[in-house]
Amino acid sequence: MAGKAKHRQPIIDAAVRLFRQQGYAATGLNELVEQSGSPKGSMYHYFPEGKPSIAVAAVEEAGRRVVDTLAALAEKSASTGELVRGHAGLLAGWMEKSGFRDGCPMTTVLLELAPDNVEVAEAGRRAFAARREVIAAKLRDDGFSAEDAERLAMLCTNAIQGSLVQARVERSRRPVEQTAELLAELLDAAMRQ
Amino acid sequence: MAGKAKHRQPIIDAAVRLFRQQGYAATGLNELVEQSGSPKGSMYHYFPEGKPSIAVAAVEEAGRRVVDTLAALAEKSASTGELVRGHAGLLAGWMEKSGFRDGCPMTTVLLELAPDNVEVAEAGRRAFAARREVIAAKLRDDGFSAEDAERLAMLCTNAIQGSLVQARVERSRRPVEQTAELLAELLDAAMRQ
Repeated sequence: MAGKAKHRQPIIDAAVRLFRQQGYAATGLNELVEQSGSPKGSMYHYFPEGKPSIAVAAVEEAGRRVVDTLAALAEKSASTGELVRGHAGLLAGWMEKSGFRDGCPMTTVLLELAPDNVEVAEAGRRAFAARREVIAAKLRDDGFSAEDAERLAMLCTNAIQGSLVQARVERSRRPVEQTAELLAELLDAAMRQ
Repeated sequence: MAGKAKHRQPIIDAAVRLFRQQGYAATGLNELVEQSGSPKGSMYHYFPEGKPSIAVAAVEEAGRRVVDTLAALAEKSASTGELVRGHAGLLAGWMEKSGFRDGCPMTTVLLELAPDNVEVAEAGRRAFAARREVIAAKLRDDGFSAEDAERLAMLCTNAIQGSLVQARVERSRRPVEQTAELLAELLDAAMRQ
């Protein structure tokens, strides 16, 4: 088992990358095997239920990475406005570096598979809830009520996510950075009230 | 030609519906032919460049529909806040009625194909710009400067778009309606200032 376990993560990493860049349906199992550098057998060993179960693992992994990134940024940000600006700067930078391919690592596969695949939809729901909670916690630290924090976190998450689609079609950092800047201004102004 | 022209629109309509619900890569040409009720030859007649050119036509058609819906709503809304609430109510209703399948009619195919397919990305860019302009015009009517209107229209469009992804994974109208309500409150408050 130990010898085979080393191949699980590379398969998931390749799935996150490929689903993010080109989507789920366009990514074949052979491409996943090749890009992960794993022997074909390991695919069937770790994911006996096939491609949909790789999608679940990829959404969970992508969700963990987003939460880790956000949590690290939240710790060093003085306010939620700074957190949102900082996160947008990172996302815009990654988008630009990838030729505007690396948008949200979950959205494409979720749109393709939810609601027909309940496990994938549920993994997406949990991932987005965890992501919103990092922002909501920071908003509560800023003095917002729990209810306002939850509503504002939903708005910030959705707006940044939508802005990544715009960045793709415009081939520009502008939609992401402009959206984050306006959100940050609104949050900063609400804090001063 | 007249006899064949009647098949072009049904093909595009089927493409909009299928790309919206399951994405581009998962939709085969045979499925498009079947669902459109068109003879197979008409597909090659109208779209000799194949499936990517159907994606361009589908994005353009979806973009036109969104603009028409928004423009009609804008005309009967007293403010941009009312427009955003009204649009979200429509979108949430369509989502619910479709079992949370009918999200943004362009996002999935754009995420799958942009930036590799420049024509599709460009069709998406134009469609989103037209959609933002309806909201920006309403914001200018509400007294916002051209610059503020453009920024707020970008935020509203992105936030509603992101909320449709949430609605899919949560199988709930709530993300769309909650996001729109907060946007409308922010716009209403900014108008009173």
